Amino acid sequence: MKTVGIIAEYNPFHNGHLYHINEAKKQSDTDCAVVIMSGNFLQRGEPALVSKWARTAMALKAGADVVIELPFLFAVGHADTFAYGAINLLESLSVSSLCFGSEHGDISAFLKAAEIARANKPLIEENIKAEMKKGSSYPNAVTNALTHFKTDLDLSQPNNILGFSYVKEIQKLGAKLTPFTIQRKSADYHDESLPSGPIASATSIRKNLFSNQTTIESLSSFTPLSTVDELQKYKKTYKLLHNWEAYFSYLQHQLFILSASELKSHYEMEEGMEYRFLKMMKEADSFQTLMTLIKNKRYTWTRLQRMCLHILMNTNKEEAKALLNSPPPYARLLGMTKQGKNYLNTMKKTFEVPLVSAVSKMDHPLLNMDIKATRVYSLPLDIKVRQRFFKQEYTTPPIQL
Amino acid sequence: MKTVGIIAEYNPFHNGHLYHINEAKKQSDTDCAVVIMSGNFLQRGEPALVSKWARTAMALKAGADVVIELPFLFAVGHADTFAYGAINLLESLSVSSLCFGSEHGDISAFLKAAEIARANKPLIEENIKAEMKKGSSYPNAVTNALTHFKTDLDLSQPNNILGFSYVKEIQKLGAKLTPFTIQRKSADYHDESLPSGPIASATSIRKNLFSNQTTIESLSSFTPLSTVDELQKYKKTYKLLHNWEAYFSYLQHQLFILSASELKSHYEMEEGMEYRFLKMMKEADSFQTLMTLIKNKRYTWTRLQRMCLHILMNTNKEEAKALLNSPPPYARLLGMTKQGKNYLNTMKKTFEVPLVSAVSKMDHPLLNMDIKATRVYSLPLDIKVRQRFFKQEYTTPPIQL
Repeated sequence: MKTVGIIAEYNPFHNGHLYHINEAKKQSDTDCAVVIMSGNFLQRGEPALVSKWARTAMALKAGADVVIELPFLFAVGHADTFAYGAINLLESLSVSSLCFGSEHGDISAFLKAAEIARANKPLIEENIKAEMKKGSSYPNAVTNALTHFKTDLDLSQPNNILGFSYVKEIQKLGAKLTPFTIQRKSADYHDESLPSGPIASATSIRKNLFSNQTTIESLSSFTPLSTVDELQKYKKTYKLLHNWEAYFSYLQHQLFILSASELKSHYEMEEGMEYRFLKMMKEADSFQTLMTLIKNKRYTWTRLQRMCLHILMNTNKEEAKALLNSPPPYARLLGMTKQGKNYLNTMKKTFEVPLVSAVSKMDHPLLNMDIKATRVYSLPLDIKVRQRFFKQEYTTPPIQL
Repeated sequence: MKTVGIIAEYNPFHNGHLYHINEAKKQSDTDCAVVIMSGNFLQRGEPALVSKWARTAMALKAGADVVIELPFLFAVGHADTFAYGAINLLESLSVSSLCFGSEHGDISAFLKAAEIARANKPLIEENIKAEMKKGSSYPNAVTNALTHFKTDLDLSQPNNILGFSYVKEIQKLGAKLTPFTIQRKSADYHDESLPSGPIASATSIRKNLFSNQTTIESLSSFTPLSTVDELQKYKKTYKLLHNWEAYFSYLQHQLFILSASELKSHYEMEEGMEYRFLKMMKEADSFQTLMTLIKNKRYTWTRLQRMCLHILMNTNKEEAKALLNSPPPYARLLGMTKQGKNYLNTMKKTFEVPLVSAVSKMDHPLLNMDIKATRVYSLPLDIKVRQRFFKQEYTTPPIQL
């Protein structure tokens, strides 16, 4: 059965995502879209606006047919780690093709750049190291290291770099999955102001929601109505939309009680950054001020947020590294439509990993981390709903639409 | 210069404490009372109602002349640890006598019991172990172990057991400090309802404050007016009075992210209790319910609260044990009256430990733990006042009255 794969965060699901799903189905000539979606924490090292369940509902109502959770450790990794987890999941689930949005819009440029990167791997890695020694951040170092090879793919653009990682991983795997790309429409990923047209970036939507310049209702210019519904329902039930500020006190507590050597044992904490964290925490009275105090040229905002997240999650460095050495060994099903159910039933026998509908049926360190992520994610909720929230992890069957 | 020592928590300072200070001065024929006071966390393993600064102010206004902080690790220890820290501090500061309140009220009974205990130490320790193997809690085991020796001191009473520990420590040290005791007036330490007379237990005062059955103003029947003033000022500035519930989410976070072996590395976590904590946390939606779920015959409420506190503080077992092997190596001055200042100036040369007025002037693991305790204590405060609160630790000079 023909299916198209999509890798997404839907934070929240907006008209650009809708366009993407529709084009993906149309261009790959299928009615079944399989989405690999980040759980409660995202690649930029931050909490999702609303839970994975609410975001799954948004996706299913707007055209996704199956939603599978990308395990926490892959979901909050840098582009290559994220791609490694997601591509392997799609391939394990016998998905036919991958459709990703990109600034560039032409798949041949990705195929060529990925081939160049594979053919010149040692040289490029050396270049990256040299650039970073000069003080570049990782994304800038990668872009600079590749410029020598005259690809016309601008890797400093966030969707290009992700697409590049997907294609590299597909080539490395020798996957059956066929990649293709569609050009992103109008909205820039990093745009912070809302546009006049129907497509706004998720970044601008979140920013405007938190600065109270936009109500949830008025998002309907930029999102399907189902997104507005789900956001309203979530806010009504849990009294908040999540952002880093809601977790700041918990992060502060960790930085009050952990020693430098304990901090250093957290994943992504490198090069003595633990001392910088301990020093700056004394001066910070919000997440924003902490980040601003810690930020320097060498580290991207994203990388620093991931460090914060791993402190909050107590992610052990050695364990994380070991777990990231192999692809996700399960596919956690968050939701499906009838069409999606049909695909799962038809194709199940070809799947290379077990499909997990109830977390109690499986015991794996990676899955335990997903459960832990949900508990940590629940901390800003009122104490009386918190328990109900994280018990969903065990009691909620996948959403069926 | 003649001085009388008092060991106290003042949580909050009430008429019983006032009677105690006055009697202590009168009976020891001195005008100078030196108080060793717990900091922000108390012997029962719980946060103080208000900060050590507010409690110091209460004490100074009501007759204390010098207030010295009992370091965190001693302050939250069991009776013997608490006594070891406090008695050594008093002795190091050349204090002449110790006046403690007790249910028994006759010092000769304490002297006799302490002598018996020292003379029969191995046998008694064996008895205690045997009692505990049968499932007794520690206080019950001590009481039972001593009944064989026919002292008329009932050690199941909380002030008797503390006094007994003080006297034992004084004898062991061969201290110059002369102990004497006054009988506690009317209020039972564990009383939870407010009496008709002027003396209520601190327990009943706290209980009534938190259940909203009593306003701060109406406490003036049971406390000096200065206590009412300080409580009101604190609540106005920080918008709360502290209790365990305000820390529950932080404790929950620790129990979400720590592994059993990490939990086990915390001081006081013994006999596989880490598994019980991890299991029960899944069911608890308040500190009260967590404690009720964890409680069994073997562990007193106090001991379980201390376990919670050391999780919250990340107190390392090995480090704590090592630090408790020697007496406090400094005396942290929280406040003094003119009379107190006179004593400090006159007697300073005889002190066996440095008097610390500014924590930045000293670097010791025990003092770092006091600073950490203040930071952790500040967590329930609003983010905007939190930083100001814990910076006091560095910037506030001792209170002078």
